[in-house]
Amino acid sequence: MNAEFVNPFIGGLLNVLETMAQTTLTPGKPKRKNDDVAHGDVSGLIGMVGPNVKGSMSITFDKNLILSIMQNMLGEASSEIDAEVADMVGEITNMICGNAKRDLAEKGYEFGMATPVVVSGKQHSISHQVDGPKIILPFNHELGKAYLEICFDK
Amino acid sequence: MNAEFVNPFIGGLLNVLETMAQTTLTPGKPKRKNDDVAHGDVSGLIGMVGPNVKGSMSITFDKNLILSIMQNMLGEASSEIDAEVADMVGEITNMICGNAKRDLAEKGYEFGMATPVVVSGKQHSISHQVDGPKIILPFNHELGKAYLEICFDK
Repeated sequence: MNAEFVNPFIGGLLNVLETMAQTTLTPGKPKRKNDDVAHGDVSGLIGMVGPNVKGSMSITFDKNLILSIMQNMLGEASSEIDAEVADMVGEITNMICGNAKRDLAEKGYEFGMATPVVVSGKQHSISHQVDGPKIILPFNHELGKAYLEICFDK
Repeated sequence: MNAEFVNPFIGGLLNVLETMAQTTLTPGKPKRKNDDVAHGDVSGLIGMVGPNVKGSMSITFDKNLILSIMQNMLGEASSEIDAEVADMVGEITNMICGNAKRDLAEKGYEFGMATPVVVSGKQHSISHQVDGPKIILPFNHELGKAYLEICFDK
C-alpha cells in the first residue's frame, strides 16, 4: 500500500477535526510492525469493498481527546463515552472515509463503504485481519493520542 | 430486516462452531431496543457492501467461551486473548459471513464482504451505526455468552 492510497485518509482525518472541532492533531511516525496494535478508549471502524479490492479502516481515540472533540463539535460536555459520543465517532469515521473515497475515485480507485461500527471500552485493541503490510498512523494531541489504520488486501 | 435475512447468519454461527469446535450454542431471545448493546471480551466485525445495500455484522464472545473454542478448534490452550485467538475470531467472522453470503445470494441478495477487524478488551461494547431497526441475538453456553448483531441500512 503506497502513500497515494494512505494520504487521502490522513488528509480526511486532519481536515474533519480541524473544520468540525477546531482540533489540530500532529502526525507521528508510522508503525509498520505486524504485531503493533492500536490501543484506545473508543474506535470507529468501517469496511470497504471495491470491484478488485477490499479492506478496513479504523480511527481510535483516547478518552480525554474524544470528549474534547465532542465539546468543540457539538457544544455538549460529556464526562463519559456515552451513546452520543459513539454516534459522533461513527459520523467522524464516515466523513474520513467519504473524503478519502472521493479523492481515490478521482485517481481511479473505486470502493463502496459499509456502515460504521463504534467500539467503546477502556484501552481496547484493534487488529485488522488482512494479509500483507499493515500501517498504523499515530497522531498526537495534548489531551491524548489517536490512531488511524487503513488496510487493504492488496 | 426480516428473518429471511437474519437466519443465514444464525445458521452460519451455529454451524461453524459445531463443526469446527464441537461447541453448541443455545440461541436466546433477540433484543430489539435501540439502546441495547452487545458486551464481551473479543469481537469480530465485518462490513458488507452490495449494489443497493450496505451493513455490518459483529460476533462478540466472553473470554472463557472463546478460549474453549480456541482449545477445541486448534488444540492450543491460551489463558489470554492473544494474537492467535484474535486471528481465529477473524476467521470465524469470515466464515459466518461467507456462509450467509452464499445463502443470501441464492435468494437474490448480493453483497461483497470487507476484510474483518478484531477488537480485544475486557467488556467492551459494540454499537452499529445504522438507521433503522437493530437486532442483537444472544447465545448461551455454560462458559459464557456470545452476541451476534447484523445491521443493514434498509
